Amino acid sequence: MLELDDITAARERVAETSRHTPLSRTYTFSSMTGADVYLKQEMLQRTGSFKIRGATNRIATLPTETLDAGVVTASAGNHAQGVALAATRMGVDATVVMPEYAPIQKVEATRAYGANVVLHGIDYDEAAERAHEIEREEGRYYLPAFDDWEVMAGQGTLGLEILEDLPEVETVVVPVGGGGLVSGVATALKSHDPDIRVIGVQAEGASSAAPSVESGERVELDSVDTIADGIATRSLGERTFQVIRQRVDEVVTVSDAEIAVAIVTLLERSKTLTEGAGAVSLAALLEGAFDYEDDEVIALALCGGNIDMNTLSTVIIRGLAETGRYLRVRTVLPDRPGALESLIDIISNQDANIYAIRHDRSSRDVSLDDAEVEVDLETRGPDHVEQLLGALEDGGYGITVLT
Amino acid sequence: MLELDDITAARERVAETSRHTPLSRTYTFSSMTGADVYLKQEMLQRTGSFKIRGATNRIATLPTETLDAGVVTASAGNHAQGVALAATRMGVDATVVMPEYAPIQKVEATRAYGANVVLHGIDYDEAAERAHEIEREEGRYYLPAFDDWEVMAGQGTLGLEILEDLPEVETVVVPVGGGGLVSGVATALKSHDPDIRVIGVQAEGASSAAPSVESGERVELDSVDTIADGIATRSLGERTFQVIRQRVDEVVTVSDAEIAVAIVTLLERSKTLTEGAGAVSLAALLEGAFDYEDDEVIALALCGGNIDMNTLSTVIIRGLAETGRYLRVRTVLPDRPGALESLIDIISNQDANIYAIRHDRSSRDVSLDDAEVEVDLETRGPDHVEQLLGALEDGGYGITVLT
Repeated sequence: MLELDDITAARERVAETSRHTPLSRTYTFSSMTGADVYLKQEMLQRTGSFKIRGATNRIATLPTETLDAGVVTASAGNHAQGVALAATRMGVDATVVMPEYAPIQKVEATRAYGANVVLHGIDYDEAAERAHEIEREEGRYYLPAFDDWEVMAGQGTLGLEILEDLPEVETVVVPVGGGGLVSGVATALKSHDPDIRVIGVQAEGASSAAPSVESGERVELDSVDTIADGIATRSLGERTFQVIRQRVDEVVTVSDAEIAVAIVTLLERSKTLTEGAGAVSLAALLEGAFDYEDDEVIALALCGGNIDMNTLSTVIIRGLAETGRYLRVRTVLPDRPGALESLIDIISNQDANIYAIRHDRSSRDVSLDDAEVEVDLETRGPDHVEQLLGALEDGGYGITVLT
Repeated sequence: MLELDDITAARERVAETSRHTPLSRTYTFSSMTGADVYLKQEMLQRTGSFKIRGATNRIATLPTETLDAGVVTASAGNHAQGVALAATRMGVDATVVMPEYAPIQKVEATRAYGANVVLHGIDYDEAAERAHEIEREEGRYYLPAFDDWEVMAGQGTLGLEILEDLPEVETVVVPVGGGGLVSGVATALKSHDPDIRVIGVQAEGASSAAPSVESGERVELDSVDTIADGIATRSLGERTFQVIRQRVDEVVTVSDAEIAVAIVTLLERSKTLTEGAGAVSLAALLEGAFDYEDDEVIALALCGGNIDMNTLSTVIIRGLAETGRYLRVRTVLPDRPGALESLIDIISNQDANIYAIRHDRSSRDVSLDDAEVEVDLETRGPDHVEQLLGALEDGGYGITVLT
């Protein structure tokens, strides 16, 4: 079982490769919720996520002769980068197997941190298979992503930092994928003070932890589907499950829509970039996924910031649409002079801003006399959207909402 | 003329409403350039930009009887929010005239900070005209955006913070629009040590400062066009021009493409959101717009983070395209079975990732037997793009690059 001593022992080792990341009070989210909210900005960690902590502690606690042949692992994302930099900094050779369709940026980053990257397989499972082959062929040590006591102890150092910077903390909210981070953090916090509440957060599309804790049996999902790829894991580990059962007070879930809104809100209000997995803790707070009191001292672990830029541009539009601030509609207008102008008039009278208009007379779906128009709009919120759609319908336009 | 005493006097007043923002060393940009680079993270300032500093000092130095009737100003962006919050915190009534098509988010933020917002006119000039009417009608004080000694003194407090946090600074890089920030900062730095170099940065599409300094006459542009809307100003002020002539060592310009790349780079590498005006100082460093030595201690003022989210999603795509990491192409394929597959094969053999494919047989621009395809791709950089385009042409596909 994981104990506080493992984590305090990890602290010095982890300091060799990693930062003590800032914990900042947030005025914005405190006043939005009435709680006293702090952000643990782990997206500012080296490699952009907490994974370097666990990788460092795992490598540092292996016998030298094991390290001579190097390490190997499989990952499509943060663990790849964490292992790469931790190994390089400790002078250990690392091979990382990544799925063939992993985002090019993450592949390049893993290479830049000094690992040999092998691209293999269509998904994580196939990449992991190849990594285990390399383990056998080359005698390398396979570095697990989460289900390992030393990895968990390394991630737990994030909990020690929260305690040091905010001793009065009452509740800590932590993203849960395989459970390595939450196991380490919960152990650090509960050993210090059993009354500190630890809330785990999963994405709805990858939520194995809550049913596992409930049923007392580790549940494995057949598939996962969420924009929070950093926590898109089919099950907890055997060891992480043991720790979570004992030390995590509650596991809640949030939807992809809520995650997109949290990412956009962090960008707009805190000027801070988080990936989906990093934003789930804020999503859980803002959506009221767990209860809290006024002035309760809450720390949210924003555990990573490695989001593919192309994905981000899609997530932004989704986050805006979810909050009624972006609207894409399609309508068919009679193909006569002034038909477009009168549509624009209605929109303008409703104080919506037009981002873009696509006017296509060649579409196959409409009769030859009609023209199809798509309009992208900036709106003020759900009420404004409803009012605008009402005005368009009153004006005789049949509207299809696209986003 | 603006003197150091004005700025030190402003310091305490400004502290009433504003933050001392962090100055952080950046490992990423230091190792990319060989210099010793620090980021002054003014996007974390209240209201998301430095403007609250100047507005606060201006209001705090007005006689009480002037303030009784309140203040008025015109702005489409950061100055609006800065004046709104500064006035509210000091118990002064504020009216802000914003152009009718100002981004809704900025209008809502200005309202939320406590100002009366009047929407008027199609651009800043028309809004300013209305604000001057209100000044006369209601006896309000018109709060200038930059060409005012007390406003400049307020902005200069940012320079004092840099000196305090990094006394060994050698070069400070500051965005220039109307010139309020750079005037204040240059005065603070040069009074302390005339050897500290101050570099001003403008956007190519709004670059009145360099020709003004060169000719000795304040140049006014007929129009401006840049994604850095926070510094899209047609000319320096009379007073800011005086200060800049004497105290700014060099004014350089960067293009919109370079600004987009800087915004994306800050997001990816520093997990930090800046607006266009905020990113020009990094753009100037990365593009070598000014000379610097190895290990030179350089502070970049990232002066704001208020970028419209919709704009951001466009800027991201542009920044990726500029660095050869996003490619959108169009081609026409013979409309026979397997034609699309063989296109995809070529792309896949070149290790590019496909984000999206649009396959349209109904387009009017091609003959009935052919089909038009648009493909969005993730690529590794300019060389990879060239190689991929070559392979597609070798495969007999006529390619149009769209982005």
